[in-house]
Amino acid sequence: MGVGDDTAVLDGGLLFATDVLTEGVHFDLRWSTPADVGWKALAVNLSDVAAMGGTPRAAVCGVVLVAGRKGEADELLGGLMAAATELGCPLVGGDTVVGTALTLTVSVVGDAPEGGAVLRSGARPGDSVFVTGPLGGGRAALAALRRGEEPDPVALVRLQRPVPRLVEGRTAAAAGATAMIDLSDGLSSDLAHICRESGVGALLQPSAVPVGPGATVDEALAGGDDYELCFTAPDPVAVAEAFVAAGLHLPAPIGTVIAGGEVLLTTPGGGTWPLPPSGWEHPVE
Amino acid sequence: MGVGDDTAVLDGGLLFATDVLTEGVHFDLRWSTPADVGWKALAVNLSDVAAMGGTPRAAVCGVVLVAGRKGEADELLGGLMAAATELGCPLVGGDTVVGTALTLTVSVVGDAPEGGAVLRSGARPGDSVFVTGPLGGGRAALAALRRGEEPDPVALVRLQRPVPRLVEGRTAAAAGATAMIDLSDGLSSDLAHICRESGVGALLQPSAVPVGPGATVDEALAGGDDYELCFTAPDPVAVAEAFVAAGLHLPAPIGTVIAGGEVLLTTPGGGTWPLPPSGWEHPVE
Repeated sequence: MGVGDDTAVLDGGLLFATDVLTEGVHFDLRWSTPADVGWKALAVNLSDVAAMGGTPRAAVCGVVLVAGRKGEADELLGGLMAAATELGCPLVGGDTVVGTALTLTVSVVGDAPEGGAVLRSGARPGDSVFVTGPLGGGRAALAALRRGEEPDPVALVRLQRPVPRLVEGRTAAAAGATAMIDLSDGLSSDLAHICRESGVGALLQPSAVPVGPGATVDEALAGGDDYELCFTAPDPVAVAEAFVAAGLHLPAPIGTVIAGGEVLLTTPGGGTWPLPPSGWEHPVE
Repeated sequence: MGVGDDTAVLDGGLLFATDVLTEGVHFDLRWSTPADVGWKALAVNLSDVAAMGGTPRAAVCGVVLVAGRKGEADELLGGLMAAATELGCPLVGGDTVVGTALTLTVSVVGDAPEGGAVLRSGARPGDSVFVTGPLGGGRAALAALRRGEEPDPVALVRLQRPVPRLVEGRTAAAAGATAMIDLSDGLSSDLAHICRESGVGALLQPSAVPVGPGATVDEALAGGDDYELCFTAPDPVAVAEAFVAAGLHLPAPIGTVIAGGEVLLTTPGGGTWPLPPSGWEHPVE
């Protein structure tokens, strides 16, 4: 369950996904408001739809509220409804119960693009590897908060209120993307998923990876919670043209798909070293 | 959220619903195994699809497991997978996290019948009111368990492993059902939903309500957790013919839709008294 692709793909190109956010694991009310949590619960699901090149159609939400913390409910639903409006995915149903840990489970359905959903399994040696925006900001902001420091304000907004890259995902699909994933866990682990599913490797230029506000290159390579997209495509010119035509920032070409199964980084001396899929540890346990 | 109908109905007749089951509210591991809980989490969603006259297409599940109770996970997923196989709804994705309270949120998509989903709002005065099977057994079994007594074995199975009335729902839709709901909360409160949404009342013959194993008439009228369907339809002969043709037990005609907004019971003396929508209190708090 939950492996293989960002969403399930049903007959007729219907996309279907679910994500659980539970207090103490996925968010911390010391630095996220309940409205932030409501927003993020929908946004991370829409990011999964974006990673398939798809368009969301509707969402439902199951909520476990905590007795005696009634005020949270309205705030949380306010954030969820704001995301539904701003991100263009109506909330059409739900179920709310009272329990012991604030938990949101959002499920979303959407439609695959005309040419079919972009899976993780289609990357081929010679494809270029792209990311749709700067990475590491979410991780850097969280690290600052945990040290009791002031995070970069732009990075903080991206941590609290990520915006799924829906237009970018559709544009990448239309430009011939062969594989795509959203960077919820971090480039190193998420690109490793593409490589494993596609039976390929990747060679990255670390200096080409765009680094988010307040972040280090390490955080850009391994930090999660950015919700940018990583995709592979055979024709970089077609990608650039499609993104320009859509009025989007150009995605950053960060490397090349190669044979083998490893994600490698080029070194200044012209060699390579392996990037471990160290992944992303959830912020709190 | 969560009001109006058993599922949302999207363009093209796509049905979409979600239900949350959380420990201490919806189930009690003293008398339900984790496998029972997994089964029931899917079954109650499919019951919502049944109540629209629909056919389930696929489900996803978000699970919060409890640290140190790892064995539950396999059992729970086993029950969920058994329900997916037995009830004909593949589980196509999921998300599993570790948290503090065992919680399952299943979401399901399905397809409305040819003539459109059966809503709660279409009941008209003169329609007959039907239920698809005996009521009150779930509530009676639970009450026995809470008293430390042995419940009726048939009623216990229906409490732990309800079977959604999918064929019955489709058959009712094809036979011209004007409104339908599943009896998760109990006849009194669920029929009151139909009456409110349709702007009608209902007159029931208490002696016509089929009483489940080990249950009293009161439990049949007000007890929840049965997952039979209640529907209204203008032509009782067409209903009977359709159910016979489908090889199903005949649904019980229990009364008539009337003008006004109340659910009334006939009395032996020929009078009426109101049935309060007292609803169903969840078994444990």
